[in-house]
Amino acid sequence: MKITVADYLVKKLKTIGIKDVFGLPGDYNFNILDAILKDDEIKWTNCTNELNAGYAADGYARINGYGAIVTTYGVGELSAINAVSGSYAENLPIIQITGVPKSSFIENKICVHHNFSNVNYYAFENIYKNVVETTGYLTFENAKKEIDRIIDVMVNTKNPVYLAIPIDVCCFLIDDEGYDRINYKKSDEKNLNDALSKIKTLIENSKNPVILYDYLIKRFNLKDAALKLVNKTNMKFGTFLMAKGVLDESDPHFTGVNMGNFTPDVLEDISNSDLLITAGFVNADLNTAGFTAFNNKTPDIQIDKTKVKIKDEVFENVLIQDIIPLLAEKIDKKFENKQQINRTSQNELPKEGKITVEDIFPFVENILDKNDVFVMETGLMSISGAFLNLKDGMEYLSQTLWGSIGWGTPAAFGAMMADKKRNLVLFTGEGAHQLTIQELANYFENDLKPVIFVLNNEGYTVERVLSKDPNDKFNDITNWDYIKLAEGFSNKKDFYSKSASTILELKEAIEEAKQIKGKKLCYIEIRTDKNDITKLGPKLVDNMKKFSEKLSRI
Amino acid sequence: MKITVADYLVKKLKTIGIKDVFGLPGDYNFNILDAILKDDEIKWTNCTNELNAGYAADGYARINGYGAIVTTYGVGELSAINAVSGSYAENLPIIQITGVPKSSFIENKICVHHNFSNVNYYAFENIYKNVVETTGYLTFENAKKEIDRIIDVMVNTKNPVYLAIPIDVCCFLIDDEGYDRINYKKSDEKNLNDALSKIKTLIENSKNPVILYDYLIKRFNLKDAALKLVNKTNMKFGTFLMAKGVLDESDPHFTGVNMGNFTPDVLEDISNSDLLITAGFVNADLNTAGFTAFNNKTPDIQIDKTKVKIKDEVFENVLIQDIIPLLAEKIDKKFENKQQINRTSQNELPKEGKITVEDIFPFVENILDKNDVFVMETGLMSISGAFLNLKDGMEYLSQTLWGSIGWGTPAAFGAMMADKKRNLVLFTGEGAHQLTIQELANYFENDLKPVIFVLNNEGYTVERVLSKDPNDKFNDITNWDYIKLAEGFSNKKDFYSKSASTILELKEAIEEAKQIKGKKLCYIEIRTDKNDITKLGPKLVDNMKKFSEKLSRI
Repeated sequence: MKITVADYLVKKLKTIGIKDVFGLPGDYNFNILDAILKDDEIKWTNCTNELNAGYAADGYARINGYGAIVTTYGVGELSAINAVSGSYAENLPIIQITGVPKSSFIENKICVHHNFSNVNYYAFENIYKNVVETTGYLTFENAKKEIDRIIDVMVNTKNPVYLAIPIDVCCFLIDDEGYDRINYKKSDEKNLNDALSKIKTLIENSKNPVILYDYLIKRFNLKDAALKLVNKTNMKFGTFLMAKGVLDESDPHFTGVNMGNFTPDVLEDISNSDLLITAGFVNADLNTAGFTAFNNKTPDIQIDKTKVKIKDEVFENVLIQDIIPLLAEKIDKKFENKQQINRTSQNELPKEGKITVEDIFPFVENILDKNDVFVMETGLMSISGAFLNLKDGMEYLSQTLWGSIGWGTPAAFGAMMADKKRNLVLFTGEGAHQLTIQELANYFENDLKPVIFVLNNEGYTVERVLSKDPNDKFNDITNWDYIKLAEGFSNKKDFYSKSASTILELKEAIEEAKQIKGKKLCYIEIRTDKNDITKLGPKLVDNMKKFSEKLSRI
Repeated sequence: MKITVADYLVKKLKTIGIKDVFGLPGDYNFNILDAILKDDEIKWTNCTNELNAGYAADGYARINGYGAIVTTYGVGELSAINAVSGSYAENLPIIQITGVPKSSFIENKICVHHNFSNVNYYAFENIYKNVVETTGYLTFENAKKEIDRIIDVMVNTKNPVYLAIPIDVCCFLIDDEGYDRINYKKSDEKNLNDALSKIKTLIENSKNPVILYDYLIKRFNLKDAALKLVNKTNMKFGTFLMAKGVLDESDPHFTGVNMGNFTPDVLEDISNSDLLITAGFVNADLNTAGFTAFNNKTPDIQIDKTKVKIKDEVFENVLIQDIIPLLAEKIDKKFENKQQINRTSQNELPKEGKITVEDIFPFVENILDKNDVFVMETGLMSISGAFLNLKDGMEYLSQTLWGSIGWGTPAAFGAMMADKKRNLVLFTGEGAHQLTIQELANYFENDLKPVIFVLNNEGYTVERVLSKDPNDKFNDITNWDYIKLAEGFSNKKDFYSKSASTILELKEAIEEAKQIKGKKLCYIEIRTDKNDITKLGPKLVDNMKKFSEKLSRI
């Protein structure tokens, strides 16, 4: 059947399970939006700005698997680029679709609005090439082939892709034959089998193997295979911070979230292991508590996204999504393994006095129920987040590697749009909240009812820890009335709000919010002292200092 | 004297007259911020997010001449890129300074936060290369030379530049000798003289020359020379929309802001001219009311930024800042010229009823005083802005070419920071206001007292005009309580606010605001009907349609 390029794109998005598209209108993307609006199976959501739209798509992809934004040429797409870069850093498949001026304007370099005076219609695609897996720029000739290619790349790499569509190409008719076909990439057969048999031998000959799973397990939907492997073999496993909440933390094989020298128990298991395996891991500062995650060991086997390293041997073109299920299937040995002591312990609720940062998470845990989505904004508290006790089926979302403050508020909105039936709890510092606060309006607009905690400690506290002088003026921020702001964004919809400075007030807020959770949006401000910081902060700074000194000596 | 690289940069910024730097702290830019904070002659201002900081620097540069922002690596700099791109499109000299991780991390590709997992420390500089005149990436070896070069380029081109500074390079000691030296670029002497004498001959032999000035006259501080030329010769002059407010509109030689077929009187002067000159002009859609600015004529002489075109002859390396003053000096002839009828006429204030869009500007004019700064956000009303009557010494700021909605609120903040003694009036649609509304907090924080008009017409009205169906759902936006929001951002500071739906309410608001102007911030919401649009909108769409059809036929 002949359909327009825009309609073909919409069909393709639906094929990979995208049901919501975020963004802002602009006169170069109307034809794309029209195609979305007229389709009942896909919903358009206006965000309050493009950065927020990008974050929303990122959060949506973390729950739904894939996300999409539509922006306009130049001004729109550039405002979203930090969000898309975050999706690239954290390996989330987002499609950034940009409407560009019509083909004859491009060919003749006509200077219409959103251009530089020295017109270059490819400048923004060139920019995006740095932050996505691949880009496509549609013409009448290549439209169908390029849409197919772009979606294939997104599915195979789980990374962001970029698509520019001139307004007239949008309306061009193409055949929709094969719109639902995805070309899946496969591992190199020989390398896969070689790597597999080597790993099988190594594991079966080991006494005490430990596997540490990271975020790509989530991205490539390998949760079941990952758990099957440890249950079948009785192997111990840990996760890194970026994979917190991906695998069941009450599993008896679970050693813990590996937070390096913050988690000596986990490090002990690593030290005692005679075969250390990582899977889907990124060796980044915050993911390893300042590069302290291995106790000076090197993993024996590293299963990366598209290759496997066994000791010093590298097997290229071995895809993580192929090898993990095969390992779970092929490995026979069952290790003896003492039942792990469950290290998670419910923290006791503090009784009274002013709230300190160490008091907060026990209260937060108190409001979390199984299957909830918990969104942790970047900030000092996100290190503490590693120690949050999760209940069955909970998702824990955080932007640990990219760490762009402001991500939390709109990303949590996107995550909720992906599954409106799940409750969501967002925890954000007020510094980060300020950057993207207007997205609050969209929770009300879409009748979403999360619990939002805003930790107000008068400044960028994580920066206070990191800068020479905690009183550096640049870490002070303007003082806002957050509850009044939430009212201003609420469009007169009813919601619960409370500002708490004392333990008693916080206790009351939590009790009330527990009753209301899921029925009304709950917005709770928690006020702590400006200089009250979690102990983990200075410890992380110290780890990084030592790492840096060691590096300088090399 | 030996000083740190950061201190050297600060000295250099002060040399070109930068007294305020905007941005956000991040752990990779603390050393830069420390250098700014300890200097009494330069002020650091935290903005609420990086995009807003970029817009603030843009607005600041429009008044002060130069602007600066400091952001952090990756997340910060990318959030600001749309604003810097706007400065590039509109030729405003902004320096984007980014703090990046320390040199040993760069050399060893260490994955610290704000990186991709496939670490590339040059990715963001590569991105910026597309939107600035030049980039620099400091090392211990090149630091001084590169800072000097970057500032020279900024001064000579009046375009944005980008500078990345690793945190350890910041603290490296260099000699401050010659910090206040700028190497000015000069025109090619021969080409300049040739062009000059040709133009002189053409003008002196003409009967009825008309010169049309555009935005580069402002950027290169050529206002006095431009007016001297017309006063000395009695030549008629006009401006384009992007130069509105640059030259005195009550000058008897002024034919008007050339808005193409919206301004038939100006087009008539152009038609009657036997020598048409443009100076510093960009031939863009909104700057020419849809490419209707020349009545099918081609300008005989085009004085561009770095070259001059006379009929079919091009003189390269002739700088606008060299040739305009020379023209004013060398041309001798005095033309006979009837005194221009002053076309500006004070609009009469409407009397009663609901407010319509056509009623608004007479009221706005009523509150404007001479020397005020008027900031016009992008939107449908910005076309009407061309017809606003300006008083002596007023500045008119608008982002006509780049046209990024959301620019107005933070850009006006930056413009006010550049000259706190001047009153400022901001006019924004509520759609645009939503994108960057949190920067309101900084007006209060810095005790600035502008008059802010927010036109609330329930949606992106400019998009309604441009899209097929004015009721397209994507042009509806969420409904906010703007006055409550302003309260939430105000940190309990006193300000005047009013929401007006009727002429009487608006009249009252204007009367009250006139009394308070400059003493308190005034925040006035003007509510009009969703489908009430200025007549100029559909006319512009029609112009663009005709232009596009003509282009297709070529």
